[in-house]
Amino acid sequence: MTVAYDGSDFLGWQRQPGRRTIQGELEKIISQIVAQPIQCVGSGRTDAGVHALGQVVSFQAKTTIPCDLLCKAINSQLPDDLFVFEVQEAHPLFRALQDARRKRYRYVIEDGRVRDIFDRRYLWPMWQRLDVAAMQEAAKGLVGTHDFMTYQSRGSMRLTTVRTIHDLTVERRTEFRTERIFIEVEADGFLYNMVRNIAGTLAQVGLGKQSISWPLEIIAARDRRLAGETAPAQGLTLVYVVYDDLPNAEVNPDADEDE
Amino acid sequence: MTVAYDGSDFLGWQRQPGRRTIQGELEKIISQIVAQPIQCVGSGRTDAGVHALGQVVSFQAKTTIPCDLLCKAINSQLPDDLFVFEVQEAHPLFRALQDARRKRYRYVIEDGRVRDIFDRRYLWPMWQRLDVAAMQEAAKGLVGTHDFMTYQSRGSMRLTTVRTIHDLTVERRTEFRTERIFIEVEADGFLYNMVRNIAGTLAQVGLGKQSISWPLEIIAARDRRLAGETAPAQGLTLVYVVYDDLPNAEVNPDADEDE
Repeated sequence: MTVAYDGSDFLGWQRQPGRRTIQGELEKIISQIVAQPIQCVGSGRTDAGVHALGQVVSFQAKTTIPCDLLCKAINSQLPDDLFVFEVQEAHPLFRALQDARRKRYRYVIEDGRVRDIFDRRYLWPMWQRLDVAAMQEAAKGLVGTHDFMTYQSRGSMRLTTVRTIHDLTVERRTEFRTERIFIEVEADGFLYNMVRNIAGTLAQVGLGKQSISWPLEIIAARDRRLAGETAPAQGLTLVYVVYDDLPNAEVNPDADEDE
Repeated sequence: MTVAYDGSDFLGWQRQPGRRTIQGELEKIISQIVAQPIQCVGSGRTDAGVHALGQVVSFQAKTTIPCDLLCKAINSQLPDDLFVFEVQEAHPLFRALQDARRKRYRYVIEDGRVRDIFDRRYLWPMWQRLDVAAMQEAAKGLVGTHDFMTYQSRGSMRLTTVRTIHDLTVERRTEFRTERIFIEVEADGFLYNMVRNIAGTLAQVGLGKQSISWPLEIIAARDRRLAGETAPAQGLTLVYVVYDDLPNAEVNPDADEDE
């Protein structure tokens, strides 16, 4: 399934007893429709408040309901902050978590004195104006394969903290009267809070508080305390997830469970 | 003042004891800042759930605080679903309600099977696909000066139900995977629920349930029951208000208080 959600009113992806989570809502509704208990696996466990435009979710069920009818049935039951774009039959061994090859995240900052109240749940408001050209230069240093331990928040264990950023763009857009900075990061995987830590670190450069070379310099230190603050969850959206053709792909042994 | 609000969590514009309203919030905060009781007048009293991008609001206060500082002070106190773009000194006789010459409203329908959950508070979702070309043809018939009594909901008294629509556009836009129909209406004034009744009536044409000539035909009947359903408030936004140069303009004796 490809799923969108507004993370504002969810306590994140992962099922928790008595809490409203994306996995919990999906499993409850799909289990009813297919009349059997099912478990959903996401491409990653997004944190509380993080949104998704294209989260990929796999589950196994024995059913004769065709995929398009299943999709309609699920959407007719879902709350209005959760939507399934499509349901596709996958290879029996497909796992949305372990088979993910690349993901793209977007982080949106609204800078300046004008607020867009309609999008307020989906961006990080900053009163100061940021220097986007400096942020763009700084972003170039992070592209490629690095040990991103400095950009990992505590609370998650990984086999390795080395990741490859394929693309990292910083772009200013003016919408109506408001100014937005879109930071988009595409990588083979992400450490816990990695995009939010990159956004917070690039914001320091944009504010002129740190040099253009600083985001790359602090990678060597492998010390989270050196990086900028973790940008708030509400500005972050999982845009899409890329998979190889299956089933020949190797499974990723260090899949990024928490993001 | 030019004010934007997300109407979702307000019980409309008008002050009501114990209720959260736009006028009530503005008056409470501005009265504190200028240390005197003030009363806000809006260009019209928008209904519960209706939004504004450019509502114009006037108030009188004796203060030495410059307008730009007043604006910042107000915004620093406002809740996050209410924002003041600017505060300007006006002619002492200026009244945002009586001096309004034209207003523009936008109504947004999302049609088809794909929902944009991020904008769900600002549009009317319809599962069927609408025929925009038919709606555009039908809209042409409503432009000009007509007695719009058929498009007025009960609950408001006016001297006359004749209004002039200067512009009425219907346009389809595709955003990401979703389809939107933007209906924009600019007129010298609006009767109670007039835009929502126009949107509901044009939707009937778009669904093929009524002919292209029907929206104009029912004007002659002067009977609200003939028109389409009143479209829900959440799809409606007051875009801007136009004023003549003051103070020579005549005051509108039949200002549209409720919309």
